[in-house]
Amino acid sequence: MVDGKPLRIGVAGLGTVGGGVLKLVSANADLLSKRTGRPIQVVAVSARDRSRDRGVDLSNVRWYEDAADLAVDPDVDVFVELIGGSDGIAKQAVEAALAAGKHVVTANKALLAHHGAALATKAESAGLTLAFEAAVAGGIPAIKGLREGLAANNIREVHGILNGTCNYILTEMRTTGRDFADVLADAQRLGYAEADPSFDVDGVDAAHKLAVLTAVAFGAHVDFKSVHIEGIRHVSALDINYAQELGYRIRLLGIARRTEDGIEQRVHPCMVPITSPCGATDGVFNAVVADGDFVDKVVLVGRGAGAGPTASAVVADLVDIARGRSTPTFGVPAAALEPAKAAPLSRRRGRYYVRLMVVDRPGVIAEIAATLRDQNVSMEAFLQRGRAPGEAVPVVWTTHDTDEAAMQQALATIASLDSVLEPPRMIRIEDF
Amino acid sequence: MVDGKPLRIGVAGLGTVGGGVLKLVSANADLLSKRTGRPIQVVAVSARDRSRDRGVDLSNVRWYEDAADLAVDPDVDVFVELIGGSDGIAKQAVEAALAAGKHVVTANKALLAHHGAALATKAESAGLTLAFEAAVAGGIPAIKGLREGLAANNIREVHGILNGTCNYILTEMRTTGRDFADVLADAQRLGYAEADPSFDVDGVDAAHKLAVLTAVAFGAHVDFKSVHIEGIRHVSALDINYAQELGYRIRLLGIARRTEDGIEQRVHPCMVPITSPCGATDGVFNAVVADGDFVDKVVLVGRGAGAGPTASAVVADLVDIARGRSTPTFGVPAAALEPAKAAPLSRRRGRYYVRLMVVDRPGVIAEIAATLRDQNVSMEAFLQRGRAPGEAVPVVWTTHDTDEAAMQQALATIASLDSVLEPPRMIRIEDF
Repeated sequence: MVDGKPLRIGVAGLGTVGGGVLKLVSANADLLSKRTGRPIQVVAVSARDRSRDRGVDLSNVRWYEDAADLAVDPDVDVFVELIGGSDGIAKQAVEAALAAGKHVVTANKALLAHHGAALATKAESAGLTLAFEAAVAGGIPAIKGLREGLAANNIREVHGILNGTCNYILTEMRTTGRDFADVLADAQRLGYAEADPSFDVDGVDAAHKLAVLTAVAFGAHVDFKSVHIEGIRHVSALDINYAQELGYRIRLLGIARRTEDGIEQRVHPCMVPITSPCGATDGVFNAVVADGDFVDKVVLVGRGAGAGPTASAVVADLVDIARGRSTPTFGVPAAALEPAKAAPLSRRRGRYYVRLMVVDRPGVIAEIAATLRDQNVSMEAFLQRGRAPGEAVPVVWTTHDTDEAAMQQALATIASLDSVLEPPRMIRIEDF
Repeated sequence: MVDGKPLRIGVAGLGTVGGGVLKLVSANADLLSKRTGRPIQVVAVSARDRSRDRGVDLSNVRWYEDAADLAVDPDVDVFVELIGGSDGIAKQAVEAALAAGKHVVTANKALLAHHGAALATKAESAGLTLAFEAAVAGGIPAIKGLREGLAANNIREVHGILNGTCNYILTEMRTTGRDFADVLADAQRLGYAEADPSFDVDGVDAAHKLAVLTAVAFGAHVDFKSVHIEGIRHVSALDINYAQELGYRIRLLGIARRTEDGIEQRVHPCMVPITSPCGATDGVFNAVVADGDFVDKVVLVGRGAGAGPTASAVVADLVDIARGRSTPTFGVPAAALEPAKAAPLSRRRGRYYVRLMVVDRPGVIAEIAATLRDQNVSMEAFLQRGRAPGEAVPVVWTTHDTDEAAMQQALATIASLDSVLEPPRMIRIEDF
């Protein structure tokens, strides 16, 4: 199975993660060789800037300008793609590597979310491994945990905090009382958020990861286009305070659930109990919770980003390859993946938090209550603090279990009331 | 690698876990066959009581009186040992199975704690798999997580709640205010604790699991005899209340740490911050926290016992075998395991909680304080509530970082004071 021959790696992309991989493979070389029975050697790299010091001696390593050339280097056994992006050079290079008979390890969730099934088919038909532990939840062994550790189970649901930037922003908003824009600006200064933060704060990054996790959990085709996506731009300090008061935290969650209508996939802000696994996960950490028919709930928490944790995940995949282990890409052979069948969000049944800004005058609450009654939406708790006759005041309530379709209908009607001054803010409650 | 041929299983021991495995393999047969490319079939079993209904049709399955006969059945590919016990029939049968060229899957932590290295050597020299995910932390994929998911890391420390019975008892004591003996009796009535609870409450079961986890984490020989073991019989409702007041929970933890003196392994009650992963894990749940040099901390939480979760772990091992995957038993080949070198507990440096029952009279505190000063033990917080001149009152303090040896010396001196009425209760504080 393994014969002591070095496993030769080509690393495309030497940013934060690529630099971390080089550092890890060098620092823990003896350990890796002891664990796998063979050395893991970086023999070639590609990156835009050749002059930058990456803290590792690269003098004996072949340099390529173009990742696609590195991908077909005849002396490379495994192509490690750390470039990013769903298309363009990353996709070309990965396809070239597979066509040239090389295993591929990637941290690229966008690529997998858009082309995962096609790439898995290519890899498996050539007897190659396509591995991507680092693409979801950073250093947490979430892919291995689901695909192998919980392989005996029908997974009923998987959910988690999949974007550390959003979780950092929401945590900071709560602990400092500041508003979204203010905390985001700080996060950008500190390097926790990108200059263009939209992939993170609009939920796209979490949705990429959720689509990949869903495929692994349910043995189904990656179906990114069916993910319902809402980001955190509309979450206000006011809502975070109300959440606390009601015993909840606001988190951006990715949730995938098998339902009678198909697989439901959604990324949006949720209220979750403060002591639930996701409620208790603050700051830049990620959490993944899987619910299997025999194992029940399993919770995995750790660092979701950063050079060290992501490199740990990339090299775990290399260790598997070096040990001669391989598993179907998404847990079942690509040809046997279940066709994507998306359950519409309108069929969600659950609880809701709603906040309105209304004119404080007699009859407003009666009007809202009548609208809810007409849609069969049953109120659970209702909060209105202080009075300011004739001025804008927040009105907050939570509902008992309600259909999403009815809730949306009620919100549309409420939004059109004269006394309602801003679009209603609705946050789904998940009592995990 | 896999060829569609059924993987034929022999299950020895049909108690709670064995019954769960039969049920899982039957209920999720299609799923398992889809994930592995071949059917997983139970073809033979052994158990003492043939007549008991286990809710699964066993009419086409061969029955053995003796597990050692089942172990050498020529039509069995994998021997699943669910008998338990460090020696006797479980050990004989596992050795017989390996000698007959069969893979072994076991949930038997006692067997592995005492004979793990020898069995690993036997298995590996014959090219066989010895797998034991179910032996540690029930349904949590802790062994796979460490041995494969975090394989790129030098593990610095692993700790966790490894015994659900103890965690249930400690949680009940806190939430109901009742004493140990009372809660234990209830747990026995409910089936959460054995008639003879000593393996659980005296820390032996947790120590077996810790010894196995340590071997996997550090690639070292299983060294059960070096585990320092204290159970929870001495934890009182009083200490649990003081812990709460100080911001801690009392947990029975297993802790393994690489130190300059060797590997430290200990099982004892700890005070951990209420919001730490182990502090937040209540009831029958288990938690495992690993700290790796690149990944930092990873937390895994789930059900540590019960038919379903344990069967999930056993069958995950079968899925690996069916997929043709194998990994060195303890993460590095048995021949390359590091010799056990135990770090003495006397070298521990950390914080301590101490409670005394003293006679309430002038000068007592001064006497205790002088003893601590003489041993260079620096007090952090000190609590004495109420007064009852001439009677017994509790006195509690916590220390700054202190050497275990100095602490033990100070406690011995304090215990000998006339005004100290009971042996001092000391609980180590771990600020994870």
